[in-house]
Amino acid sequence: MNALPFPFPVVTWDDQAVVLIDQTLLPEQIEFRRCNDIPSLCLAISELAVRGAPAIGVAAGFGLVLSWRLNMVGENDPKKILEQFLADKKQLAATRPTAVNLFWALDRVGAMTAEMVTKGESAESISSALFAEAQAILDEDVAMCRSLGMHGQELLRDYSTVLTHCNAGGLATGGYGTAVGVVFAAKESGKSISVFADETRPLLQGARLTAWELQNQGIEVTVVCDSAAATLLSQGKVDAVITGADRIAANGDAANKIGTYPLAVLADRHGIPFYVAAPGSTFDAGTETGQDIAIELRDPGEVHQFHGGRATPEGVAAWNPAFDVTPNDLITAIISEHGIIRPPYRENLAKVWGSE
Amino acid sequence: MNALPFPFPVVTWDDQAVVLIDQTLLPEQIEFRRCNDIPSLCLAISELAVRGAPAIGVAAGFGLVLSWRLNMVGENDPKKILEQFLADKKQLAATRPTAVNLFWALDRVGAMTAEMVTKGESAESISSALFAEAQAILDEDVAMCRSLGMHGQELLRDYSTVLTHCNAGGLATGGYGTAVGVVFAAKESGKSISVFADETRPLLQGARLTAWELQNQGIEVTVVCDSAAATLLSQGKVDAVITGADRIAANGDAANKIGTYPLAVLADRHGIPFYVAAPGSTFDAGTETGQDIAIELRDPGEVHQFHGGRATPEGVAAWNPAFDVTPNDLITAIISEHGIIRPPYRENLAKVWGSE
Repeated sequence: MNALPFPFPVVTWDDQAVVLIDQTLLPEQIEFRRCNDIPSLCLAISELAVRGAPAIGVAAGFGLVLSWRLNMVGENDPKKILEQFLADKKQLAATRPTAVNLFWALDRVGAMTAEMVTKGESAESISSALFAEAQAILDEDVAMCRSLGMHGQELLRDYSTVLTHCNAGGLATGGYGTAVGVVFAAKESGKSISVFADETRPLLQGARLTAWELQNQGIEVTVVCDSAAATLLSQGKVDAVITGADRIAANGDAANKIGTYPLAVLADRHGIPFYVAAPGSTFDAGTETGQDIAIELRDPGEVHQFHGGRATPEGVAAWNPAFDVTPNDLITAIISEHGIIRPPYRENLAKVWGSE
Repeated sequence: MNALPFPFPVVTWDDQAVVLIDQTLLPEQIEFRRCNDIPSLCLAISELAVRGAPAIGVAAGFGLVLSWRLNMVGENDPKKILEQFLADKKQLAATRPTAVNLFWALDRVGAMTAEMVTKGESAESISSALFAEAQAILDEDVAMCRSLGMHGQELLRDYSTVLTHCNAGGLATGGYGTAVGVVFAAKESGKSISVFADETRPLLQGARLTAWELQNQGIEVTVVCDSAAATLLSQGKVDAVITGADRIAANGDAANKIGTYPLAVLADRHGIPFYVAAPGSTFDAGTETGQDIAIELRDPGEVHQFHGGRATPEGVAAWNPAFDVTPNDLITAIISEHGIIRPPYRENLAKVWGSE
């Protein structure tokens, strides 16, 4: 397999189309999907060809560039272009109804565009500014992840072994990643790191995506069933556990992919540091503790099925929580883009992220 | 789905053939596989149509009945029949090279047969005695499991919820089961029990077999991904964890399917009893502690594959330990056919099982 450029070109713009690594085909095939109209981009987002909140945000930004440029064809009046642009924006917003970064990126680029139209700027100059703004969303994400990674890698010695869960990687972001970004940053800093990746049932993001990313960048990776991670930890085969987070409460409790909490308990039992790598955007100062985080229950079909096969007897129930909550006392440190945040979390999170 | 008779007819004899529930077809289809010659029975054992040490032992016993009766056709001399019988016995022994119960059953029935031949008994009377001995192996297993189950069910209140891992069920034994047998015994005692079954990657014995058994007997069962069990325990949704054991050391440390140890750690953290259900045959007085139990590493292909699909990128490594070891201090009690064994285990295991 040929190594891709790094940070991965998860979402890029090539003047006529939004180009995505088609994540529905990974790990079997590396193919780029060109979306040269809004319906094809909407389909790519809803089919999870691009997934992960930051990556979706980048795709949405470039989607608005695409919309503006398509609507400029045969039309010079910015007000008329804006009408169709806003209809496209609505379509993009409807692809993933709970994706915060999607709305955030659409609003950021949309607000700038509307303002320029109001000011009477030309269609051409709006087109240029739109591209710059969308590219900035991507560049800011990569810079944020690299900064997070560089802080995090200071926690790893050369020749360390890291255990991670799910895919908090380049493919979920603008190309660099958070938890996996720490490993990439360690490599950029000249350290040799090897990784154990939990396969992460039910959707196997670890086996499919994290393993693929690390392999692509020449980092030694070994996949284990989620239930084997405890043995890795008990046998001293792991120097640090690093996971991402979907939401961090004011007291430092962290919600992440189902299966994170037991890793934290086992790491604690065996004296292995457990780190959460997450940017300020995951911090929710309005949520007091992990107990206030509602756990999304997903389709039981994800448990019943696997790669098209059926695992369970017809008619049997399955319970499929998407996330679990790791209490703050099990978290050794939170790795952020501003540095390493340590307990006491209530004070220190507010200090670092409180103003964001 | 029609309920099967219970204990399940996992392995039975119908006068001309060894009849097995074909476990390669579960849970999609319930089909019985008739083995009316030794090669077809050897194939059934090696293909895992019958699996689980006690069930394989029963199949081997009936296999020797089949051998004797086939070799009696056109031959009255017990010594000549014995020659071919011993060749068949060797074939059966070669099917699963590490299955202790397989050798034990073959030796038990084989020794009896050789003795009767030496004593000059008729082919016909040996044939009858052979059947009685093979049937006794089955009946003793069912009686042992029922006794274990009856002791174990006293630990469960009506309307309890049990979490189990892998398949220590009827299908692995003569039809009643050990860890799952406790649930069947609770039902026979009039209690209403519901069960959470870990799917048990990589081979999904929980999703495929434990869920099927319980559903077939009308017991409420819900399958979860192995990594979701921690959330069940932390949310108080489980009253007791009950697993089987493959081997119990002199100090009570217990080796069982990979993923058992983290359940014990989590149960301990949340104050939920963790029980190991296992017969005396799993007790290994010669093994001092769990540290002396070698952990079998199985084919990484089991992690890479799932129901014919591939989860990981080609060329990525996987690590696939078959078992883990739960230290004795995390085991609330061991449920045996002779009663409930509690700490201190070194003394109490020797007392109950020492003479076996």
